[in-house]
Amino acid sequence: MTTGKIKDLSRLCIHTITTKPWDIKTAVERYAAEGVPALSVWREALAGRDVAKTGAWIRSQGLEIVSLVRGGFFPSVSREKRESALEENRKAIREAALLGAPMLVIVPGADPAQPLEESRSQIREALEVLLPEAERAQVKLAIEPLHPMYADTRSAVNTLAQANELAEYFGSPWTGVAVDVYHLWWDPALEQEIARCGRNGNLFAFHICDWLSPTNDMLNDRGLMGEGCIPLRRIRCRVEEAGFTGYHEVEIFSNRFWAGDQEVFLRKIKKAYLEHA
Amino acid sequence: MTTGKIKDLSRLCIHTITTKPWDIKTAVERYAAEGVPALSVWREALAGRDVAKTGAWIRSQGLEIVSLVRGGFFPSVSREKRESALEENRKAIREAALLGAPMLVIVPGADPAQPLEESRSQIREALEVLLPEAERAQVKLAIEPLHPMYADTRSAVNTLAQANELAEYFGSPWTGVAVDVYHLWWDPALEQEIARCGRNGNLFAFHICDWLSPTNDMLNDRGLMGEGCIPLRRIRCRVEEAGFTGYHEVEIFSNRFWAGDQEVFLRKIKKAYLEHA
Repeated sequence: MTTGKIKDLSRLCIHTITTKPWDIKTAVERYAAEGVPALSVWREALAGRDVAKTGAWIRSQGLEIVSLVRGGFFPSVSREKRESALEENRKAIREAALLGAPMLVIVPGADPAQPLEESRSQIREALEVLLPEAERAQVKLAIEPLHPMYADTRSAVNTLAQANELAEYFGSPWTGVAVDVYHLWWDPALEQEIARCGRNGNLFAFHICDWLSPTNDMLNDRGLMGEGCIPLRRIRCRVEEAGFTGYHEVEIFSNRFWAGDQEVFLRKIKKAYLEHA
Repeated sequence: MTTGKIKDLSRLCIHTITTKPWDIKTAVERYAAEGVPALSVWREALAGRDVAKTGAWIRSQGLEIVSLVRGGFFPSVSREKRESALEENRKAIREAALLGAPMLVIVPGADPAQPLEESRSQIREALEVLLPEAERAQVKLAIEPLHPMYADTRSAVNTLAQANELAEYFGSPWTGVAVDVYHLWWDPALEQEIARCGRNGNLFAFHICDWLSPTNDMLNDRGLMGEGCIPLRRIRCRVEEAGFTGYHEVEIFSNRFWAGDQEVFLRKIKKAYLEHA
């Protein structure tokens, strides 16, 4: 059983949304200056930019691109909206390829106007359509189960068991799962489902942050590692025991941190990562 | 398969917290005047009152008392706090008996300073201690699994499967489960776990309200039945198919409704109950 501390920054990745006030140029330069070796790029950060050139420039700064975030949001009672979601995801797959990101994170989506079962069917159908396109583009799709408090509008896939079932249904090297501690820490089946995810070759990504008590905002009040109650090191060790050797991606949505100095925040992230991840 | 609409108010029960601005006297009088046949009493509503006399008076007004709400909050890293939680629960059991409530709702609790597994052990140990006392007092304990967004401080029991396991572990007619749609609607295993709960004689209580999109407050922004995305009628029918013949308890925490006229709200509850439950 792995229980070790993090030794260095070599597996640290930061999502651009984490330092949202910075544009992508500033983020990349500051991450590089602080020795952060990788990032995941949010699509918002690419708006108005040449995606291929941005990808090449990021690599020229010495950073690895772990994933493009995010596709998904498939379900809708409206066929028209489902079709336009598919189009948007095709665009996201192309963007990932242009950027040189090997993976697109999929937030499945949900529509409160229909039963969860219907949303789940639509998610599976959409992935069925997109999978050949993802394979052609050589972009992996990482299905991210979201916390049950987002079951109304953001994801009808709310447990790692559900995401595992979906990934196993496709049984493709191009679909897998993004495990995010924020969404999954409470689940009594978490450890067994992490093992299953790894065993089936579906553990594509690992996202970290913390759960604050109290949490003052359902979306944008995530904590820095160590500030909350998630047994982060324990989960990270289970993820590694399951065969995961990829990056530990810091994804923090936080009005509190976004309102402050991002340089200070970046140094706090490094410190918290080394002490608590 | 039951799919029928609610026919009348004969199974309607309201939690006193739902009309929090009213003291218990006003609540009982207004419920009675509007033909609501039952209520569940929050302990806060009994503060400073003679509990036995209040229970007798409620019955004299023609209302049935379904449960006393709430006991629980067992886990803590501090032994002293665990002991005082047990004392508080002994008091709650005595209060339920004095009030003439056949059941005490148990919100299990959680302490973010320790792993969920530890909180779960402490919940089981506390119930083990209290069960003989509940039996002596002829008060049933209804374990309520809470939504995973409350796993940090309010409940380490977050799915109906977990609550079922707990109740089955005791295998006593004095412990069972309170099924609340707000906490459980997202769970892909909900229907099978409702069937299991009924099959094992553990379906003690059924609480209703709705999930709003968006939800603006993690605690006090619950919706009136029909305002949100919970498939309420479908869940109620599964609960009845599982053998449940008890009351449908309206439990709505809502800053929005509490800020308004409670008479108007009460009439809305009746209407929403008949149309959507």
